[in-house]
Amino acid sequence: MKKYTIEAISRAVGGKLSGNPTIEITGVEEISRAVKTQLTFIGQKKYIKLWDRSGASAAIVNQRLDVDPGQGRATVSVADADLAMAQVLNLFAPAPPACEAGIHPAAVVDATASIGPGAAIGAGCYVGPGVVIGAGSTLYPNVTVLDHTRIGSQTVVWSGTVIRDRCLIGDHCIIHPNVTIGADGFGYRPSPDGRGLVKIPQIGTVEIGNGVEIGPGSCVDRGKFSATTIGDGTKIDNLVQIGHNCTLGRSCVMAGQAGLAGSVTLGDGVVMGGRSLVKDHVTVCAGARIGGSAGVVSDVPAGKTVLGLPAEDHRQTLRIWAAQKHLPDLVKQLIRK
Amino acid sequence: MKKYTIEAISRAVGGKLSGNPTIEITGVEEISRAVKTQLTFIGQKKYIKLWDRSGASAAIVNQRLDVDPGQGRATVSVADADLAMAQVLNLFAPAPPACEAGIHPAAVVDATASIGPGAAIGAGCYVGPGVVIGAGSTLYPNVTVLDHTRIGSQTVVWSGTVIRDRCLIGDHCIIHPNVTIGADGFGYRPSPDGRGLVKIPQIGTVEIGNGVEIGPGSCVDRGKFSATTIGDGTKIDNLVQIGHNCTLGRSCVMAGQAGLAGSVTLGDGVVMGGRSLVKDHVTVCAGARIGGSAGVVSDVPAGKTVLGLPAEDHRQTLRIWAAQKHLPDLVKQLIRK
Amino acid sequence: MKKYTIEAISRAVGGKLSGNPTIEITGVEEISRAVKTQLTFIGQKKYIKLWDRSGASAAIVNQRLDVDPGQGRATVSVADADLAMAQVLNLFAPAPPACEAGIHPAAVVDATASIGPGAAIGAGCYVGPGVVIGAGSTLYPNVTVLDHTRIGSQTVVWSGTVIRDRCLIGDHCIIHPNVTIGADGFGYRPSPDGRGLVKIPQIGTVEIGNGVEIGPGSCVDRGKFSATTIGDGTKIDNLVQIGHNCTLGRSCVMAGQAGLAGSVTLGDGVVMGGRSLVKDHVTVCAGARIGGSAGVVSDVPAGKTVLGLPAEDHRQTLRIWAAQKHLPDLVKQLIRK
Repeated sequence: MKKYTIEAISRAVGGKLSGNPTIEITGVEEISRAVKTQLTFIGQKKYIKLWDRSGASAAIVNQRLDVDPGQGRATVSVADADLAMAQVLNLFAPAPPACEAGIHPAAVVDATASIGPGAAIGAGCYVGPGVVIGAGSTLYPNVTVLDHTRIGSQTVVWSGTVIRDRCLIGDHCIIHPNVTIGADGFGYRPSPDGRGLVKIPQIGTVEIGNGVEIGPGSCVDRGKFSATTIGDGTKIDNLVQIGHNCTLGRSCVMAGQAGLAGSVTLGDGVVMGGRSLVKDHVTVCAGARIGGSAGVVSDVPAGKTVLGLPAEDHRQTLRIWAAQKHLPDLVKQLIRK
Repeated sequence: MKKYTIEAISRAVGGKLSGNPTIEITGVEEISRAVKTQLTFIGQKKYIKLWDRSGASAAIVNQRLDVDPGQGRATVSVADADLAMAQVLNLFAPAPPACEAGIHPAAVVDATASIGPGAAIGAGCYVGPGVVIGAGSTLYPNVTVLDHTRIGSQTVVWSGTVIRDRCLIGDHCIIHPNVTIGADGFGYRPSPDGRGLVKIPQIGTVEIGNGVEIGPGSCVDRGKFSATTIGDGTKIDNLVQIGHNCTLGRSCVMAGQAGLAGSVTLGDGVVMGGRSLVKDHVTVCAGARIGGSAGVVSDVPAGKTVLGLPAEDHRQTLRIWAAQKHLPDLVKQLIRK
Repeated sequence: MKKYTIEAISRAVGGKLSGNPTIEITGVEEISRAVKTQLTFIGQKKYIKLWDRSGASAAIVNQRLDVDPGQGRATVSVADADLAMAQVLNLFAPAPPACEAGIHPAAVVDATASIGPGAAIGAGCYVGPGVVIGAGSTLYPNVTVLDHTRIGSQTVVWSGTVIRDRCLIGDHCIIHPNVTIGADGFGYRPSPDGRGLVKIPQIGTVEIGNGVEIGPGSCVDRGKFSATTIGDGTKIDNLVQIGHNCTLGRSCVMAGQAGLAGSVTLGDGVVMGGRSLVKDHVTVCAGARIGGSAGVVSDVPAGKTVLGLPAEDHRQTLRIWAAQKHLPDLVKQLIRK
């Protein structure tokens, strides 16, 4: 178990220490659950009153707030509590699971695949013909990468993930467990007799930039032709669906269970709340925000926030939600049967 | 194929037999599809009229109902038809798929892992350093369990599931195929230049109690710090998302495609319908029920039933749904353009 | 890289060529992104104006439209642009990923399993006792098929998919990566003390017809008894949930993240939009259409289109959506506090 004095932690986050500098900290916990030897965070005023009764020995405190460390305890004032928390979590981060550089004897790697220096291919992985894995990248056990896909350097692919053929994945990406990249898009046309469906070939690929993160269980379909593309730094949560030929900009955020039908365009920095959905061929412009559970059926201008089903300007949707509470009375009052 | 006389079945469920006791039963089917040698169930009055035309040779009947077995057939009266059905299904349950105790030669188990007596590790499994698998637990083929995770006894983990490092899973759990437990929570902060996102380390774990069931494709993220926790006896359906630092009580039920954003608290016995969603940091108190497709954005008191988007008391939402049918006429009547 | 003259392509799609017949085409792209040597499509009038500035050397054109090929370029007139596109995509389709006929040495196939002629079992696959794999079917690496399941001929199962015991899969199916077929349905009854839940055995199976496609991450639960069934030619997109004892007809379509609770019946040719949901025990009759995000809580007659939550006739829901924009003003006008 890692252990630091609060003084060392204060130095690491560039904070101002008050109280006992010699306290030893072994971990981080929220204020109502923390016990002795744990550090907590007071980022907002409402948490101050919990500090007296908290078991924590020390707290990182937003410098705007006035918190007395109290007897035998310590506080560390910082300008940005979120940043400080990230820095502290880094201090306590355990080593990632073991996956030795090189090819595990229980992995199957095609003779024509290229594995970069320092890359690790775990037990049970399958790496197909012509695949390229960049320097320092890790495939945890039981990953499948099919023919001619190229993965950049320092990318981590967790167990159970399947990346099909001819995809491109950038550097410094994190692909979580059980993700599917490059499966066929969903396209059919009526059969000649009009009574069934014939598959439209999906011959495109998937191109994912650098620094992209894709959550467990999520799916990114390959293009019908050309590519489904995800820009640098975009972060995708769990169980997210991205249909064929979507184009995502840089630094987009898609929360859990969100979905894009086919040929959707997201500009840079678009944020989608949990379980929000965008209809096919719709464009959501840069910096737009889509509320949780929203269903977007038409284009969204840059920077706009939308909410509801069908999604509207969020202020309008909030007004509708407030008004609909009165709807039953209104109907009763006005409609006599 | 298993086979029992209806007399043996009647005895097994503690029922009262009428009609032919020697009928041989080979399986169970619903009343409109059952054929000779099959047993069916009549739990409600509306099914009685189907009994005459049913191909079934026998029926388990709720004792409140008056059903004549008829020529050459049989009925078994019971106090609790649901319980009797479960008992009968147990009688006919086939053996689970083969997975021999011990470590399959095609599994990779780290030398420092501990495998309990009677535990079975299937082909293609990977079990990392320091992992502990309890007595009598089964890992079906192609399961991945990473470093220092501890799984209790008599727990079954189905194929394709990935449990990351340092998680705790209790006894008598069932983790269905392709589940992901312990992937990173979804947390970022703006980069110093404000134009991108920096990952916040997710250094916590997942702690799952005893008797928990998790459906295929579902995801339980690890805590940012501390743990995401799931109480004893909680049952989770398919494709469910549980964000980081959620706390679920005992005997909760989450139906298919339901979701919890981060830091949600569910009290004991909370029931969530299909595709319902709870916003981050919301508390749903013990015994509350959340209707299908609901979107919960604020705390729910104990025992309350909510429905709709945003979720309200279910009676209020049903009133709104009934009233909104009149809304177009109302608007037409009142707004002249 | 494949390459065809536009003349050869015109012949392949049975079109009428205008302009330069010797142009060499190496791929397909949409009109605004296409570059030289690429072929594009003009299926609707609105795309004609993009043709002048398009980099494409040739276009497949709907014969109803009047498009001049212009200097050095070519057009191919066809009666059905969608059909022609599918034919062209077939011409350019690359070979599927390698998976040699026979059993890969790193696969584990039980001695009692039967593998048809020409079938391919990839590295890391597990095939259990009594399993039957039909002629010419392919299991890509890291597929799991458990005891006594039978898969037809010419069916493709992609990596990471898990098919549990005693399921039936037809011929010419495509099961995409990380699919789960045959996991237990979700059924519990209150424990005798009323304080917990007891699992109801799920002893049924899954029966999937011919020509069925199931998208990545989707789940088809096994029946409580009898079977969950999917009719011939039905197409299921990504992350779809199909509960126990559902019955789907022929040529149904379920778009991404759609869901069926238990015991739902879909008639032939039912179309479900993205993220639509059907409540348990509901019947949706043949040819009905369910809009995206809809929540269906009662039976839907044949051929009807429904939309909204709760789902209503789509015209009625569209009227409600249009009217609710006026609701805040209406309430303000009528309710004085």
